[in-house]
Amino acid sequence: MGEFDLIERYFKRPATRSPLGVGDDCALLAPAAGMQLAVSTDMLVEGRHFLSTVDPARLGHKALAVNLSDLAACGAKPLAFTLALALPAIDEAWLEAFSRGLFALADAHGCELVGGDTTRGALNLCITVFGEVPAGAALLRSGAKPGDELWVSGTLGDARLALEVFRGTLALPPEAFEQARRRMEQPEPRVALGQALRGIASAAVDLSDGLVGDLGHILAASGVGATVDADAACALIGIPAAAALDPALRRTCALAGGDDYELLFTAPPAAAAAVLEAGRLSATPVARIGRIEAAPGLRIVDAQGGPIAQAFAAFDHFQARA
Amino acid sequence: MGEFDLIERYFKRPATRSPLGVGDDCALLAPAAGMQLAVSTDMLVEGRHFLSTVDPARLGHKALAVNLSDLAACGAKPLAFTLALALPAIDEAWLEAFSRGLFALADAHGCELVGGDTTRGALNLCITVFGEVPAGAALLRSGAKPGDELWVSGTLGDARLALEVFRGTLALPPEAFEQARRRMEQPEPRVALGQALRGIASAAVDLSDGLVGDLGHILAASGVGATVDADAACALIGIPAAAALDPALRRTCALAGGDDYELLFTAPPAAAAAVLEAGRLSATPVARIGRIEAAPGLRIVDAQGGPIAQAFAAFDHFQARA
Repeated sequence: MGEFDLIERYFKRPATRSPLGVGDDCALLAPAAGMQLAVSTDMLVEGRHFLSTVDPARLGHKALAVNLSDLAACGAKPLAFTLALALPAIDEAWLEAFSRGLFALADAHGCELVGGDTTRGALNLCITVFGEVPAGAALLRSGAKPGDELWVSGTLGDARLALEVFRGTLALPPEAFEQARRRMEQPEPRVALGQALRGIASAAVDLSDGLVGDLGHILAASGVGATVDADAACALIGIPAAAALDPALRRTCALAGGDDYELLFTAPPAAAAAVLEAGRLSATPVARIGRIEAAPGLRIVDAQGGPIAQAFAAFDHFQARA
Repeated sequence: MGEFDLIERYFKRPATRSPLGVGDDCALLAPAAGMQLAVSTDMLVEGRHFLSTVDPARLGHKALAVNLSDLAACGAKPLAFTLALALPAIDEAWLEAFSRGLFALADAHGCELVGGDTTRGALNLCITVFGEVPAGAALLRSGAKPGDELWVSGTLGDARLALEVFRGTLALPPEAFEQARRRMEQPEPRVALGQALRGIASAAVDLSDGLVGDLGHILAASGVGATVDADAACALIGIPAAAALDPALRRTCALAGGDDYELLFTAPPAAAAAVLEAGRLSATPVARIGRIEAAPGLRIVDAQGGPIAQAFAAFDHFQARA
């Protein structure tokens, strides 16, 4: 099978919402009047973003999920995506499962594949995703104000727990491991919540490198500081068995776990009811875990407000990870 | 240096034409009213699309050029691009030169970097480029009609000559090699010509996999056949020293060379003067090399119309290349 057969068999579908999809030099997108196009690109490399043993259907899901998560963090509605794929060889079983996982998530969000590229090379997945957002309504990292409350969606730290099991530093009961592993391999992007938060949240970011690191982006872009309640964050670890783990490990997972793909966002206290309603409408749990302050820097405290002396490193793709 | 320092130092520039550039979860693009957004993605892998010894400034140029060439083939005006980069390590001299070559071409076309991703991995460059084109005016592969003339811009086959020198199958005088090598490593996308051909050309494609293969895309999409004058195509090889080479090698280079990044397009005979004027306005040579016909298939003939019995393979990234 050659390059064009591969595209034809696994990746070519008629475009239904875009004026032109796969098969020409370019795809054509037509955002509706008054809408801006939100664009994000994420590249996934074997051994760094996923293990070589991962189920290819889950990998197809995750490659798109991490990109949809960026759209969610901007409050954008998914429209379309391109996929560039470097493969060491053509493995039809792999391609069948990968494309199945990819399109299942794409279809769930009405996001169509409009173009891309395939080539031989070390396994590498690069997706660029497109969404629409009303002009001026995108959620940005730069809008947090002192006094705003800090919120997070869903659960924290479960993907990191699975990673620690893979690394052999932790053991979990089989059921808990399977739950954590699914969280790592098949994150659900918070697309509906992101759109529901338009006009309510003052700033937002998606959690990919760990809460402390990603919160740092909001603080830097907004010129503010924050206090985070570590106990409130640790209470959001989804796996019940985690409650019995060492508190320092639980804080690492919840505050610097990485691969959470939840939304971290800020909103004025007066908007708290609207935030809870946005969570309800999008069927997404949301919880308050801290507060934005004028004093620069990040303060991590326990439920009683006492300081926690523990260092947290954000994930950096060019640094070794602890 | 970490991932974010790398982006800050080499790739972060203020967005001037896009509402939001590098530094948030998404970039925001706002195509003008009545315009569609043309989108294309190309991934470049070391050893397959470029040699490890290539000057990184030329590589930066080429990575964007091959994407701009896709916009040109649609008649779109460049707006912005995203860059995803997997690097085996942070090499500051390499990054300085790569980003210099990249931005020189980007600036020449008013195309701004609005986002991307960086990670550690086998060297891999993935660019997604965005352009605008008036709704309904994009040049497509599907519009060729029997009777249309077949045109090509610029020169053919020079990049392939350089490749053959690198492979050791051919020797060229130093000056000719340098000229061919520049054609391979620093192609100039025909962006101005593509826009000038809107409303004139009936179909267009950019030449990346070789003329025969890329023409095949027009023929398949348009449901037509063609006759190509191999002598007229060979006359477009840019390097004067090539005139002395074996005719079969010259035909391979001109008709199936790959990496030309010229535009191949069709237009009705009545539009010939307009095509020549589009070439003049965009300072791009254009030449007629064949004709579209109702009979399916591709016929390659010499200047006297006699058939040429030579097989030409289109470049396929999953097949070995002759």
